Parts: sequence; structure tokens; C-alpha cells
Amino acid sequence: MAHHPQLVSELSEGELLARILPRLGAGRALLGPGDDAAMLASPDGRTVISIDTLVQDQDFRLQWPGGYSTTGFDVGWKCAAQNLSDINAMGAVATSLVVSLTLPANTRITWVEGLADGLSAALRALGAEQCTVAGGDLGRGDSLVVTAAVTGDLQGRAPVLRSGARPGDTLAVCGVLGHAAAGLALLESGMDYAALSGWERSLAAAQSRPCPPLAAGPAAAGAGAHAMMDISDGLVRDSGRLCAASGVRIDLDPEMLRKDATLLAGTAGNLGADPLHWVLGGGEDHGLLAAFAAGQELPRGFRRIGTVLEDMGPGAGRVTVGGGKPAAAGWDHFAG
Amino acid sequence: MAHHPQLVSELSEGELLARILPRLGAGRALLGPGDDAAMLASPDGRTVISIDTLVQDQDFRLQWPGGYSTTGFDVGWKCAAQNLSDINAMGAVATSLVVSLTLPANTRITWVEGLADGLSAALRALGAEQCTVAGGDLGRGDSLVVTAAVTGDLQGRAPVLRSGARPGDTLAVCGVLGHAAAGLALLESGMDYAALSGWERSLAAAQSRPCPPLAAGPAAAGAGAHAMMDISDGLVRDSGRLCAASGVRIDLDPEMLRKDATLLAGTAGNLGADPLHWVLGGGEDHGLLAAFAAGQELPRGFRRIGTVLEDMGPGAGRVTVGGGKPAAAGWDHFAG
Repeated sequence: MAHHPQLVSELSEGELLARILPRLGAGRALLGPGDDAAMLASPDGRTVISIDTLVQDQDFRLQWPGGYSTTGFDVGWKCAAQNLSDINAMGAVATSLVVSLTLPANTRITWVEGLADGLSAALRALGAEQCTVAGGDLGRGDSLVVTAAVTGDLQGRAPVLRSGARPGDTLAVCGVLGHAAAGLALLESGMDYAALSGWERSLAAAQSRPCPPLAAGPAAAGAGAHAMMDISDGLVRDSGRLCAASGVRIDLDPEMLRKDATLLAGTAGNLGADPLHWVLGGGEDHGLLAAFAAGQELPRGFRRIGTVLEDMGPGAGRVTVGGGKPAAAGWDHFAG
Repeated sequence: MAHHPQLVSELSEGELLARILPRLGAGRALLGPGDDAAMLASPDGRTVISIDTLVQDQDFRLQWPGGYSTTGFDVGWKCAAQNLSDINAMGAVATSLVVSLTLPANTRITWVEGLADGLSAALRALGAEQCTVAGGDLGRGDSLVVTAAVTGDLQGRAPVLRSGARPGDTLAVCGVLGHAAAGLALLESGMDYAALSGWERSLAAAQSRPCPPLAAGPAAAGAGAHAMMDISDGLVRDSGRLCAASGVRIDLDPEMLRKDATLLAGTAGNLGADPLHWVLGGGEDHGLLAAFAAGQELPRGFRRIGTVLEDMGPGAGRVTVGGGKPAAAGWDHFAG
């Protein structure tokens, strides 16, 4: 009987590439994988670029306490989604991903094939068909590390920066708040994954396969947003970054936050958690945080979440909730 | 007494960034680090892009048997050099790097500062002052992983592909052959690093801080090179890739190879190694392999190393040395 290789250690680099490349589709690059570099059209004369990494046991567990196994598809999807979100946050449209995979020898080939499928599926499902996986790199390592760099096209628009918020602006968000954190709590809780409700599984999916609102970034830029960023490390922490860049402070509206928290109250009750902590501090939702001129009609999908105020100087809180201290801070990759 | 943090685990992400960013210089990006993505000028209307990763214990050891400790400076330099080399191989000029660092908690802050210095120093020393470190990503992991994506500008030229070599072309190389492999052998040998000669240390440096000939790629493109690639996995293996892409075979000239091997003969003798194996099979030199029309004067820095011949069909050797089988194959990231 023929031997069917199961692990990446049984394949050469060329053989593994031959498994991956057909799953990535033809793409729209002027020159795709196979040369020392890929080539893209940049008709705008400017290119936006970002890079983001997923590390096993830091950004995902291969096996969660409740029994859920993270698939290659999940990791490919999340890698694409979090990179695309950075381009979205500039008001740009993603044009290419280049992806570097560091794989332990015992990684299953089907897991890597799933990762390629997840990258492709996220591009289609999130509405980024114009984005192509243009190239990549394969190597060995002790743990799984997936890094992608993403390029984007501003289509003639000005980029929307973090630094443009002005006192009096309406602060708005697009996308969910705290769902990925609720999903993380469910996956970490040890609750049997197979017994989770459909709603709870959708929260787990918000953690494993986030869905950034990709049409909303260019739309907000087109509508004249003063400032914008994606919410990757939590509403309070990322709001603080917007404040620091713009030289302003922000007061979040407790009434609006309560609406988001109410959605998660049942799940939080089951886990003995506070849903407002997820809404204020939860990362990885990859929604958009943007400042618009006061009184402006918000673009479709955005909802008011607070107000931009004048900076009160050192010592004053940068981000408040109804004038008071927030109940949760958010995620720092290095703290503690 | 004030506490002076030593390890990255003692800093927040923002504090570590504040140590890194000043070392990267002002840069020439239209928009540098600090937003969700950076922005570059792409006046050519096309962008070339590539990605490459260095993994601890795979691509470098922190501590070598003979006592040499790989510095952050070395890793930053090598990361820049190998990425810049991919852009060089297309005949383009690098415009930006985005860099993702995965750092164990016990990584020394000074090591990371050294890495930033090494990135900057390589850009200057290798003649890539027009290239800027435009952005990055920081995260935790069990081992050090450094990934960079690099963009480049073709300055109006056509990219030089692997697929353009034609029977009768002169095969030429620019840069050293086998020096990085000799350096690796020295570092792995257990010979006391402190007792190595100046020449031997320069070979070790070719491994730790390679110097791709960055002016030569655009010059070869301007001179009408038919095909080009960088030699990252060894002359024979990379020549085989050029053959496969171009549908040709290659015969390397043993007389020319002997000149390269002679340079390394003393070191090889000390280690009981065959210098020709390093020349034929050694990776990481990041020189250029290019095919030029027969009889054409080679651009400065290139030397003839063989001849492009017609493909003889399946079963025939793709790459030969004086018509015979090569003595060494080269590096595969997944084989064995």
C-alpha cells in the first residue's frame, strides 16, 4: 500500500507548498507566489501596510479546556481577519496578504491545508475578494507562529488617523463589543463545548473567527471621519490610544454600553462574570472606533458610544464612563 | 534606588515600543509607526512584496558551541538583509520593512534594543537608506521569532523573474558562495570563537550578518538580465529552481567553482570539511544568480559560473557540474 504522509515533517518545502497554493485561488496580484517577491498594482500611488502575528498558546490554544480544538481553518481565518482589520481602520481596501508559517514537525498536513482554506474563506466571506494571498514563507519551529503582512489601497482618499479627533466629536463604534472576550471565557471555562447553545457557539466563533466590518472603514473615511482605529485590545485601552494620539479625552456613555452588556448578560451570569468588563476591556472583536463631527449622521453600521472632550491635562483620566473610572482596562501584550 | 527593568516582561507594550522606535530613525514613510497601518509612496504604480522569518534554534542559536552569543544586533541585521535580498532579486529597490517580534518573557530589553539597532544599521550599511521601518507588531511566545515583510519599488523597470532564462544564456553570480555555510560550520564546530582568526570571524559574520549586494539587482535588471533570484538555499538548489521556472537546465563550470572553493580551503581543512560542498550547497549568502544573453558584458560585480542549456526532459539532471552530478544539494526547510 502507498504511504500517505500525515505530518509536515514527511514533506519537502516544495511538496507542502504544492498542497497550500491551489487552496489560495488564482488571486489578482500582477505576480503571485513563485518568485523572490510578489508584485501588486498600486494605482493610488500610495500603499498602506501592516503586520500581525498569531502565536500558539498566546493568541490561541490548539486544545481548549471544554474540548474545542482550534482548527487550521480558524487560525487562517483569524490571521486574515485581524490583518484586514488594520487596513479597514485606515479607511483603505486590502490588496494583498503575504503569510509566514512557522510549523512544528508534528503539525498535521491537513491542519496546514485548513489554514490555507481559512485564509481564502475569510477573504471571500468578509468581502475582501479584491485581496490576494500574494506570497509567503515556510519554516520550522517549536510552536506554531503565523504572521501576515497586509497591504491596502486608499482609492484616492486620505487615510483616517488616530490623531484627528476633536473636542465635541461624536465617538462611534461599528461592530460587536465584548463578544470575542465572552467567547474566550466560554472556551477557557471548561464548559463542555458540545453542550454549548447556538448563541454561545457564536460567541466562541467571535473569538476563533472574528468578523471585522470591512465595508465600514472605507465608508467612514468617505463620510469624513475625523479619526479611526480598530478595537483590538479593548474599548477602554484603544480609546485611550485615540485620546493620546489626538490630545483629547473621551467620555463613554454608560447607557450605550449597557445595551452591549445586556446582550452578554446571560452568558456572563452562567460564568459568574461581569458582561460590562467584556464590553469595556475585551479585545479581538476588531470593530471600528471612530470620531465624527458632532451632529453628523453616522455612516451605516456605526452607533454613538460616547463623546470626545477637551484634554484636562496630566492626571485627569483620559477615558471615563459617565464621568467616572472605567470598570476594566483592556489587554496589554506585555503587562504582567 | 530606582528599579531599572532588565527583561521585556517588566515593560508594557507601550514602554517597549518607546525603547525601540527612536532607534529606527525618522524614516521616509508618508506615515510611520503609531497608526493601525503605515503608508508608503508607490510612485511606480506597482509594489513588490515579500516576507521572511527567523526562528530561534532554527535560523540562529542564541549561544553557539564555541562561545559566540548571537546578539539582537545580529538578528536585526540578518532579518533586514534576507528580506532586502528578495527585493534585490526582482531588480527592485526596497522601500519599507514591517517587523513582527515574538519575544519570550525573559528576553533582555537590551537584546531587543540591539535588534532595532541591527535593523537600522543594515539598512544604512547595505545601501538601503531609502528603506524605512514603517511599522511592526510585538507579542509574547516561547521562542524568539522575528518576521519582516518588505516592499520594493521597481522604478519603472520590469521585474526580473526566475522564469526568463533561455538556452545559451550565461549564468552568473554576484556575491560570495559558501561563506555563510563556512561561518555556520565554524560556529557549530566548538572551536573557541575568541581564538578564531580575522578571516574566520569574517566567515562567521557572513552567517550572522550577511551582506547581499543590493546595488547589483537593479543594475542587472537595467542591463536586461533574462532571469534572476537570490541564492538563499544554496547554488545547486536555487539553480534547480531557476531551471524549473524557466524550463531549462544548467551546467555549472567546475573551474569557476574551484576559485570560490579555494578561498575556503584553509578553513575547510581545519574542520575536515569539503569547501566545494559549501560553495555548491551552502545557503544564506544572499548573493544573486542571474542569466544574461550570451556574449553580453556582465554588469559590475557579476562573474560567469555556468551556462543555461536546453531541458533534456524528465529524468535528466536539471543542474550539473561539468556535465556530472553535483557534490552537494542544498538546504530544504522541511526535508529530514
